[in-house]
Amino acid sequence: MSKNAFYAQSGGVTAVINATACGVLETARNHADRIAKVYAGRNGILGALHEDLIDTSQESAATIAALRHTPGAAFGSARYKLRGLEENRAEYERLIEIFKAHDIGYFFYNGGGDSMDTAHKVSQLSKSLDFPITCVGIPKTVDNDLPVTDVCPGFGSVAKYIAISTREAALDVRSMSRSSTKVFVLEVMGRHAGWIAAASGLAGTTPAEPPHVILFPESPFDERAFLTRVKHSVERYDYCVIVVSEGAKDQDGRFLAESAARDAFGHAQLGGVAPIIASIIHEHLGYKYHYAIADYLQRSARHIASRVDVDQAYAVGQHAVELAIRGENAVMPTIVRESDEPFQWSLGHVALSRVANREKKMPRSFISRDGFAITPTCRRYLRPLILGEDYPPYRDGLPDYVTLKNAAVPRRLKTDFVLT
Amino acid sequence: MSKNAFYAQSGGVTAVINATACGVLETARNHADRIAKVYAGRNGILGALHEDLIDTSQESAATIAALRHTPGAAFGSARYKLRGLEENRAEYERLIEIFKAHDIGYFFYNGGGDSMDTAHKVSQLSKSLDFPITCVGIPKTVDNDLPVTDVCPGFGSVAKYIAISTREAALDVRSMSRSSTKVFVLEVMGRHAGWIAAASGLAGTTPAEPPHVILFPESPFDERAFLTRVKHSVERYDYCVIVVSEGAKDQDGRFLAESAARDAFGHAQLGGVAPIIASIIHEHLGYKYHYAIADYLQRSARHIASRVDVDQAYAVGQHAVELAIRGENAVMPTIVRESDEPFQWSLGHVALSRVANREKKMPRSFISRDGFAITPTCRRYLRPLILGEDYPPYRDGLPDYVTLKNAAVPRRLKTDFVLT
Repeated sequence: MSKNAFYAQSGGVTAVINATACGVLETARNHADRIAKVYAGRNGILGALHEDLIDTSQESAATIAALRHTPGAAFGSARYKLRGLEENRAEYERLIEIFKAHDIGYFFYNGGGDSMDTAHKVSQLSKSLDFPITCVGIPKTVDNDLPVTDVCPGFGSVAKYIAISTREAALDVRSMSRSSTKVFVLEVMGRHAGWIAAASGLAGTTPAEPPHVILFPESPFDERAFLTRVKHSVERYDYCVIVVSEGAKDQDGRFLAESAARDAFGHAQLGGVAPIIASIIHEHLGYKYHYAIADYLQRSARHIASRVDVDQAYAVGQHAVELAIRGENAVMPTIVRESDEPFQWSLGHVALSRVANREKKMPRSFISRDGFAITPTCRRYLRPLILGEDYPPYRDGLPDYVTLKNAAVPRRLKTDFVLT
Repeated sequence: MSKNAFYAQSGGVTAVINATACGVLETARNHADRIAKVYAGRNGILGALHEDLIDTSQESAATIAALRHTPGAAFGSARYKLRGLEENRAEYERLIEIFKAHDIGYFFYNGGGDSMDTAHKVSQLSKSLDFPITCVGIPKTVDNDLPVTDVCPGFGSVAKYIAISTREAALDVRSMSRSSTKVFVLEVMGRHAGWIAAASGLAGTTPAEPPHVILFPESPFDERAFLTRVKHSVERYDYCVIVVSEGAKDQDGRFLAESAARDAFGHAQLGGVAPIIASIIHEHLGYKYHYAIADYLQRSARHIASRVDVDQAYAVGQHAVELAIRGENAVMPTIVRESDEPFQWSLGHVALSRVANREKKMPRSFISRDGFAITPTCRRYLRPLILGEDYPPYRDGLPDYVTLKNAAVPRRLKTDFVLT
């Protein structure tokens, strides 16, 4: 007996979340006896709440295949966190209502920690309402903060982009340091954890090689130690490359970006942290500087995605469908690392209850004692995640990314749903 | 009779200036009967003034070949402009002194407008001092502001990087615009001309496709018209992607970045223009925004260099040596466009006197009447420059860029030279 499936993309997007969608859709098509159609939520879970579903069966096999090399969220994503079951039971009941109306028996939710929590709650409610739905969370986040899985698909490609950009910009700065810019600051994402900043450490292997300083959210900013290190780097190597996490904090735990922006200018949203760091250096050491803020470029850079990451992103999508068909409910596929070198990995899965509301922090053993670099342990973990390239096809000098038709599924309910 | 050659890299570096070095060195090695050794200036022309020369003959053929795929300036570059012959004749005489001491008969200077001027002056002085030296300027600049040549090597790769980054980041913003960020601002280089900003226009081909607004230095910032356009884009497409040149100016010709930074904060060097633009939007329209500042990433991104650009960068280096051997003096190789589609180009050359102190502006016909987009004429010019990919080799997930030995040539003069 076949049922329809519902798939939604959630939260900040990545270079490879569509590769996961590709894995879900291609695998579902191979199991037409079990999964009739896959409906996608337009703009993520909002599409379900508003009964705005996309009929993916109207897309050709070639179009679905092209999702593998297209960044962003092809069906639209949303930053919308469903609240607790007690707080807003209506939202969960609405989801079940929609699922019933469209004969949906599978719920695939592709996101981070919040999404795993939502998928978990839907599975609990479906039990209590006696409406059977197989819920599978699929990991995705550049923040790499989901527990149990070795890595979150999406992270490896950001890591690769940042490591490459650090290496490249460093060659630029080094070329000119004698007579021009001596300090380069690159601001990267990571509001709560330094995973992405850590990845920049892969750009070099000796203290002489950039980045010379990494500022992690995990290491409270010690201005004096920092300036000493910058000065040392400039005196010794004639230049200094600094990678700073947007989440870098002062000794009191306040974001450097926020505090400085508030104190000095009164504009809370103006600053990035890179200009703050740069101006501290300029003020105390007088070095000429440049800074870059990678922002969305880092998480959409499909043109230089990690092949390992793309493969894993596809594989978790594929595995999610296989798990669901096997009758596994309330689970999330995981990446299991078998060995570091040669890098080998396999797929596993874990109960959503073990994932929901648990955040994986970067281990303290990944950051050097002085707080400004990564350790060999960290390097061993990160190295395989950026291996391999997976170039998209090009047309007219630009990546040939696909746009879907995203045709709407006819509505079956007469009711609208108002978000509270 | 063979003479040594002197090669120096000058000014801001690019993703492909080393491809030009590769062209110079490989071609010189093929003409050992005419060019004995190529000495490179350590840190550009400063290496000549300080008699700090690099013996490139100590590098293997494989190392020289790897320059083709390595960004930055392998011998070091410098922002150092020699002043006029009358103002500081001593510097030019010092160059000639160094050339004499090291039996240098060829001077290859790889840079922008200032460097072409220097090469031209050296050629004039060598005549008046009766010391024969063949001077060839080699074009390089991401700013694309040298006259006569169809394009400056270095520009095509920045153009490709910016067009790709715009397309990718736009997919990210579009994915989330329903519930999150609606406006994305990308700041690109180009203090005096909008060539790089214009390249972002290649990312889309219809008004619905990003970038929705481009801010050029050539079009004084009209806040009202700008806000109207942003609002229209968000209302119509649910998001708005803006690319702003660092050189965008207000109606009085002041840099937006500078004026705002000075007026509001008193920190002249703090601001980029992206946060200024973003905050204007936020203040007047209330949209949630993100911004990125590409800075050095854009001109060092060899991982996604344009194949046309790499080929042309190599070709001008090769042609420079061929011209010199043919006895052409005080010239610069040029790229000659033969046809737009299919794109065909050949090599030519021009007298340095026709290049020195002339800046190529972006034609007014390249910017749309409203000042916020590129025209079909501009698109026809830009399109071929980003064609093709030229991926570097990778090791451990990172581009395998080469570092030279850069062994010093033993000094022959007893005198030091003090820059004034």
